[in-house]
Amino acid sequence: MNSINSDLYTSAWLNSDKEISLRDFLGRVVVVHTFQMLCPGCVSHGIPQAIKIRKCFNETDVVVLGLHTVFEHHHVMGKEALKVFLHEYKITFPVGIDKAIEDSEIPLTMKNYGLRGTPSLLIFDKKGDLNFSHFGAIDDMIVGAVIGSLLAEK
Amino acid sequence: MNSINSDLYTSAWLNSDKEISLRDFLGRVVVVHTFQMLCPGCVSHGIPQAIKIRKCFNETDVVVLGLHTVFEHHHVMGKEALKVFLHEYKITFPVGIDKAIEDSEIPLTMKNYGLRGTPSLLIFDKKGDLNFSHFGAIDDMIVGAVIGSLLAEK
Amino acid sequence: MNSINSDLYTSAWLNSDKEISLRDFLGRVVVVHTFQMLCPGCVSHGIPQAIKIRKCFNETDVVVLGLHTVFEHHHVMGKEALKVFLHEYKITFPVGIDKAIEDSEIPLTMKNYGLRGTPSLLIFDKKGDLNFSHFGAIDDMIVGAVIGSLLAEK
Amino acid sequence: MNSINSDLYTSAWLNSDKEISLRDFLGRVVVVHTFQMLCPGCVSHGIPQAIKIRKCFNETDVVVLGLHTVFEHHHVMGKEALKVFLHEYKITFPVGIDKAIEDSEIPLTMKNYGLRGTPSLLIFDKKGDLNFSHFGAIDDMIVGAVIGSLLAEK
Repeated sequence: MNSINSDLYTSAWLNSDKEISLRDFLGRVVVVHTFQMLCPGCVSHGIPQAIKIRKCFNETDVVVLGLHTVFEHHHVMGKEALKVFLHEYKITFPVGIDKAIEDSEIPLTMKNYGLRGTPSLLIFDKKGDLNFSHFGAIDDMIVGAVIGSLLAEK
Repeated sequence: MNSINSDLYTSAWLNSDKEISLRDFLGRVVVVHTFQMLCPGCVSHGIPQAIKIRKCFNETDVVVLGLHTVFEHHHVMGKEALKVFLHEYKITFPVGIDKAIEDSEIPLTMKNYGLRGTPSLLIFDKKGDLNFSHFGAIDDMIVGAVIGSLLAEK
Repeated sequence: MNSINSDLYTSAWLNSDKEISLRDFLGRVVVVHTFQMLCPGCVSHGIPQAIKIRKCFNETDVVVLGLHTVFEHHHVMGKEALKVFLHEYKITFPVGIDKAIEDSEIPLTMKNYGLRGTPSLLIFDKKGDLNFSHFGAIDDMIVGAVIGSLLAEK
Repeated sequence: MNSINSDLYTSAWLNSDKEISLRDFLGRVVVVHTFQMLCPGCVSHGIPQAIKIRKCFNETDVVVLGLHTVFEHHHVMGKEALKVFLHEYKITFPVGIDKAIEDSEIPLTMKNYGLRGTPSLLIFDKKGDLNFSHFGAIDDMIVGAVIGSLLAEK
């Protein structure tokens, strides 16, 4: 799943005072949890799983990022609403806002990786290549196995 | 906890084509789940409990209402956002919007019943009097016992 | 479901220094959780529910009893094994051992109430009559409603 | 944690028609879930986790074994009781019975690996060396990471 253009396309970042690129993290495994704040499966499953990943691994080994990939109900899931959501759900890792494309409901990063909906989980290896992409709920044990396997790579 | 002025003060109702008053339901037990759409405890505990009450009891015996009692972050929890929330979380019982008071963050019904936050659960007996008021998470078994006890009253 | 002969038939009681009869508890609601110690549904659902009933209601209002209704694998679910089980699972309410019938796998109380398996929940009203009998998992809210309704009876 | 004498010492195996040694599985990751059938933490956490490991990984990559390490209440956790337990809990992977030592409550394998109680999880790498030993509950994500990391080794 190697991609030379593999990166996140965002219009803003919350919980970060600078723009973030996957290239900032070469040598580390990067987990990107893509979600919508009003998506029940994201709130009950995806977000708690992302928070657990953050707790289970060292930041020097594994980077956890959120990506708000709004593809419906855009008018009520803007930046201000997202800020409140991150505050209320005590999400402290950086969260990017997926870049809107003119005349399209699907934002740019979502389109680029062919994501089918939310929540989706993207895991990048130490070279920055996409290794794992999953739409919907997925067991913590599988996620742990993917990360553990990528951490073992030189 | 008898109150002659016991009622809900709302600016609008969703999932209902007419205004709703507690007086419409004399002879039935009425459960009011008060919540905010961006309150984690409401989403993980209160809303599922309200949905379960709706499933466990007949509508002819027990009425379930939601009440959106926004007391913080008003700018991102308006009517349009609430509509999307109800749709996404598949909430089909009527939900009122607690009436804003000028110069106050606390809306009118919330103030009237002295509610301390969200989620809060209000249970009214067949005569329309408030019998039970609880702030925070509460076990399904206790809620069942309160409702069962009120249903047994003549 | 009134039964003049309604009672428990037991060969021994654990967590009690005397024999127990439903007639000891007239004026109180009595909940009997029937189980087998090696029944997965009893261990994951029934026993925790019985313990929760004990915590949610006062002993002066609601009596909780266990009944070990062994109808299979009798050779490994004897009194000594049950003692260890009650100790390990921290069950402190009285537990009776349903009385074996010669030439039958089904013990006497189980047969008397027509129970189909374990776990089964029996709830008796203040007059000692069986009001509710359920085989299998049942939601805490329903159990609460039954108990609450019976407590409201004079 | 390399150990030349690393192996399981058992008096019998259930769900297997032959004796099992760690040496049978060189080239595969081996997970050993040690438990007692009347230990609540084993039943609620350890056993379901072992069953989940069996489902999440291929048998050609990961071997899952149970080990009944009885160190208390020996008289009610014998082989016949264990057989019923495995049947009732639908455990289909091989389960060994840790070998009793005369004049000791602690069986041989448990003693050899210095296990402090049940449940304990042992994970062996492809060379048969003990890599991971944990007493008590442990998150599925961590277990997945350990297994994933060992699977990535040549």
